[in-house]
Amino acid sequence: MAETNLQVLLRRRPQGEPTPDDFEIREAPAPEPAEGEVLVRARFLSLDPYMRGRMSDAKSYAKPVEIGAVMEGQTAGEVVASRAPGFAPGDTVLGGFGWQRFSAVPAARLFKVDPDEAPLSASLGVLGMPGLTAWVGLEDIGQPKAGETVVVSAASGAVGQVVGQIAKIRGCRAVGVAGGKAKCDFVTGELGFDACVDHRGDLKAQLEAACPDGIDVYWENVGGAVQAAVFPRLNDFGRMVMCGMIAEYNDASPRPGPNLMACVRKRLRIQGFIVSDSGWQRYGRFRAEMLGWMRDGRMRWREDVVDGLRAAPQAFIGLLKGANFGKLVVRVD
Amino acid sequence: MAETNLQVLLRRRPQGEPTPDDFEIREAPAPEPAEGEVLVRARFLSLDPYMRGRMSDAKSYAKPVEIGAVMEGQTAGEVVASRAPGFAPGDTVLGGFGWQRFSAVPAARLFKVDPDEAPLSASLGVLGMPGLTAWVGLEDIGQPKAGETVVVSAASGAVGQVVGQIAKIRGCRAVGVAGGKAKCDFVTGELGFDACVDHRGDLKAQLEAACPDGIDVYWENVGGAVQAAVFPRLNDFGRMVMCGMIAEYNDASPRPGPNLMACVRKRLRIQGFIVSDSGWQRYGRFRAEMLGWMRDGRMRWREDVVDGLRAAPQAFIGLLKGANFGKLVVRVD
Repeated sequence: MAETNLQVLLRRRPQGEPTPDDFEIREAPAPEPAEGEVLVRARFLSLDPYMRGRMSDAKSYAKPVEIGAVMEGQTAGEVVASRAPGFAPGDTVLGGFGWQRFSAVPAARLFKVDPDEAPLSASLGVLGMPGLTAWVGLEDIGQPKAGETVVVSAASGAVGQVVGQIAKIRGCRAVGVAGGKAKCDFVTGELGFDACVDHRGDLKAQLEAACPDGIDVYWENVGGAVQAAVFPRLNDFGRMVMCGMIAEYNDASPRPGPNLMACVRKRLRIQGFIVSDSGWQRYGRFRAEMLGWMRDGRMRWREDVVDGLRAAPQAFIGLLKGANFGKLVVRVD
Repeated sequence: MAETNLQVLLRRRPQGEPTPDDFEIREAPAPEPAEGEVLVRARFLSLDPYMRGRMSDAKSYAKPVEIGAVMEGQTAGEVVASRAPGFAPGDTVLGGFGWQRFSAVPAARLFKVDPDEAPLSASLGVLGMPGLTAWVGLEDIGQPKAGETVVVSAASGAVGQVVGQIAKIRGCRAVGVAGGKAKCDFVTGELGFDACVDHRGDLKAQLEAACPDGIDVYWENVGGAVQAAVFPRLNDFGRMVMCGMIAEYNDASPRPGPNLMACVRKRLRIQGFIVSDSGWQRYGRFRAEMLGWMRDGRMRWREDVVDGLRAAPQAFIGLLKGANFGKLVVRVD
């Protein structure tokens, strides 16, 4: 007899800030795996800012979630039943199985991991898409050199934590931007950044103090007032790694950006990327390097764990407002 | 007895649009070359948009011209007297000798050219700094691939002419933006661009028609309304080569720019450069390739020649408003 599945669907497209009514929570029988498929039970679901884009039907790099479909998301879980060679019940697997407890997945979309290498939830954060995002964006665009100053917005978040710590490993001065004293204390104390700017305070004065030699690399996760304060402080040949602008995701119409003449005068590079373009081809190299740093104690991370799939919509709404503290994951059961 | 020198000095820093009173024209005795120096008589002076920046004391990549000093500029001329080995009267030389008839220059700052290779004034345009700018910016940032669409603003100007023709040589669709029918006709007729948009008309509709497959590379010379119209039409992985924003050089305060979230969604790269950073190290390679194209008839150019150094201030003021048609040079005498 099939177990009961629990699913979170997109009920309608949000106008501005999402509300719980934009989601629908549904029980349904767990699916049966077809030949070549594996039945997976999710243990952890990752909640990430990009999901706001998937809820909208505005033109973007990825197709939107259809109305009435299961919300997309990365999950870590275990194999319950297998009709595919190479997978057996009890195996630990990663994949994009969405906001649901059970899914029947073609074997090609599964990634098997050794559960003893790291805590399972870490494969959704520091060892997963957010960690890979940080690593790829620095490798391809940020290219921090020893002695440079790297500023990271949303510094206590899933990607920001990793960006700053890699910058430290590369010999840079790492300066975070986060909201509130608790996050800033964590960023400097636990993560070892050199300084952290509280965006609820006087951004300009704090940035001046934290970046006496200007800013060589700005990792953009937030946009808005932080971007406006950082941009004029970029040094010649500065790089702006465009990863996201979460402070503006709920805006109905786009805000103006900085005047781009500074790009000429200072030879700036502003460049965006999406980790799925070419990041996963480098996952092996990334995972090996990251596991090394984790074992050495040079890479620390904080998770904000929410219990139960039914709590996912509210947790996601909070994520867009910075209510989480650390990488936001849902413990599915 | 020394000949009479004629010099154009910066009298005061312009507020907004420069006026003739911001300049001072002065006669003085020609200088005597010291040991190791060469006395050069300028035949042509190049007038270029970057000079507006040098008239201002706002922080920039280069020091401003001091009040009372000779305006900076590239010149092509001939050696009148030499106290340096390797240079003799009659030699044809290039260098940044400023807005003046005679200058005494250290030999290391002179570049000797073969006057039979190309008309002398071309060494200030297609074969000089503007041509090198086009070539370097495309090599380093634009990187046009065959089949891509390259849009060039100020397309009939010194840099724009060359950008579009190199794009054609590389197998791209070249679309110019210029002011008025005469310039647009020249850009498509004489220079061989595939289309030209008149920025005095409906920019959006014309761009749609001229770029049915979107825009892969935008060469930015002007900023303002053209930038605003082009930016939303950039394709995924589009590149914006930030060379200048002449339409805004006289602005008292900077205008807002585009919202940068498109950089993430479309993985755009917006990058600025200054040709003097690393361009001249590649001048030999550039000059050889450009001379080849000129001899083959694949590279055409138009100059707007103004007679007499006394006319330089007014010609420069016009340049900032697009009054010139082609590369603006002053025939010094």
